[in-house]
Amino acid sequence: IGGLVLIKNPHLDTMEEDILYHLDLGTRTHNLPAMFGDIKFVCVGGSPNRMKAFAQFMHKELGLEGSGEDLADICAGTDRYAMYRTGPVLSISHGMGIPSISIMLHELIKLLHHAKCRDVTIIRIGTSGGLGIEAGSVVITDTAVDASFQPRFEQVVLGDVVVRSTDLDRDLAEELLACSKEVPDFPTLIGHTMCTYDFYEGQGRLDGALCSFSSEKKLEYLKRAHEAGVRNIEMESTAFAAMCGLCGLKAAVVCVALLDRLEGDQIRAPREVLREYQQRPQRLIAAFIRRRLGLHPPAGPALPSSN
Amino acid sequence: IGGLVLIKNPHLDTMEEDILYHLDLGTRTHNLPAMFGDIKFVCVGGSPNRMKAFAQFMHKELGLEGSGEDLADICAGTDRYAMYRTGPVLSISHGMGIPSISIMLHELIKLLHHAKCRDVTIIRIGTSGGLGIEAGSVVITDTAVDASFQPRFEQVVLGDVVVRSTDLDRDLAEELLACSKEVPDFPTLIGHTMCTYDFYEGQGRLDGALCSFSSEKKLEYLKRAHEAGVRNIEMESTAFAAMCGLCGLKAAVVCVALLDRLEGDQIRAPREVLREYQQRPQRLIAAFIRRRLGLHPPAGPALPSSN
Repeated sequence: IGGLVLIKNPHLDTMEEDILYHLDLGTRTHNLPAMFGDIKFVCVGGSPNRMKAFAQFMHKELGLEGSGEDLADICAGTDRYAMYRTGPVLSISHGMGIPSISIMLHELIKLLHHAKCRDVTIIRIGTSGGLGIEAGSVVITDTAVDASFQPRFEQVVLGDVVVRSTDLDRDLAEELLACSKEVPDFPTLIGHTMCTYDFYEGQGRLDGALCSFSSEKKLEYLKRAHEAGVRNIEMESTAFAAMCGLCGLKAAVVCVALLDRLEGDQIRAPREVLREYQQRPQRLIAAFIRRRLGLHPPAGPALPSSN
Repeated sequence: IGGLVLIKNPHLDTMEEDILYHLDLGTRTHNLPAMFGDIKFVCVGGSPNRMKAFAQFMHKELGLEGSGEDLADICAGTDRYAMYRTGPVLSISHGMGIPSISIMLHELIKLLHHAKCRDVTIIRIGTSGGLGIEAGSVVITDTAVDASFQPRFEQVVLGDVVVRSTDLDRDLAEELLACSKEVPDFPTLIGHTMCTYDFYEGQGRLDGALCSFSSEKKLEYLKRAHEAGVRNIEMESTAFAAMCGLCGLKAAVVCVALLDRLEGDQIRAPREVLREYQQRPQRLIAAFIRRRLGLHPPAGPALPSSN
């Protein structure tokens, strides 16, 4: 069973039908093997517009016919998530935070299983706050850690805490770093990524509706994170690493830093600058997918459409 | 300072500008008091389409001019959340899960503060899984509890766990229950609402990509929840109750049950039935807002547009 997606649920085989509710897909209503059986790359990110732009960009990067502008949302029947495919690439939004990405991953992993996909690589392309790195830097995660800088994901199952490993694929991370040489106009590095349940208090921001700590305590915490190897902070990586790892998916997390949290809390860069930052992980992943498929880069400037 | 929104953050007053990044609003770019100063009711829910439909429905229920079909998304510059207003009612989506609603609430509460809003009532209108109640029943939450059935919200701040109360406004819950007599075609009840970080394993579902427990263990857990007074399960109420409580907002949670979890895990009802279920909390809240404003119900059938 080399390369198949592993479902760790003995109950699933006994179900006559599986409704993937939040994707508006199902085993009885859709021919999942026909729709998805040849998918080799799954890219996920928070924003639906960004994941649409990524699918359109990949369409061009793969040299496929047409502009890609008319790619349809496969999950159009629901607004919980958006999903696009072009060639062997699936692009899906996951919203913000661990609960939101975990619903999507449960249903995506079942989808890949029902579709009998093989040798799938899954990559989260996201945004994050940097830690001691220049705004616009791209971080490839070697280890996803929690708010105590530990490489673990705590999942509550029937009221009890279960601790899961957050290992990511080391070879994949190195392969992505090698690919970054092809997109040399921004810095790319490998580091730990801290994953939190909250954007404000949970990441030590002073600018939320609630804040009970001083600027000094905040900096002390962020510097401890930096000393532990954390180079960026986001809100999905531990759950993503844990679930993909358990299900045998080779997984990577590639996020751009929108700011350096050692210098501030608010995201102040102009929209145009932020837009270009968000294209950076997309360009890196396009280079990676092209290389894997043995394709040369397309002629002319390769830039994702804005969103 | 009666009725003002309380910001529990001494740093906020020292900021020259506050960028509400995920709402695409800010104190320097927008005149928040002019845009929002007269808001009295804030309704929040997971799905952007549903919150748009609710705003359009309220527009009609308030007897305002025009069809309401052309209400603009105030957060159109971002796809993280969607926001609509009609009369004194603001309708905002929050995505799925505690981290997603918490980002929105931080920025919404700051918005209400900057706009100098007074005497705001905030209500989450959502979907949920029922526990020992008929599908389609509407649950008004008296207490939001965690996966151990405790009325608490654990928030990680700078790596340490802080425990917060999840009290909701009792009088408001009773007032909503009284209003439910005006919409007698579905059952409405008051009960505890359990809030989890995961839809599948965290709510004892047997149909996720991962499941390590038996059907018996699942039912044992759900029955214990029912005995503790839990009548429905969703993914935002504890954070919502805790944050609104700390900031002095009178808050309520009103969710329809899409199924009875004692009878199954998958959401199998036809889309048309689910659509009508999702309109039920909207109709109850419309009756409540009309009553608060001293308005009579509009003539003719009052039904929200679909989704």
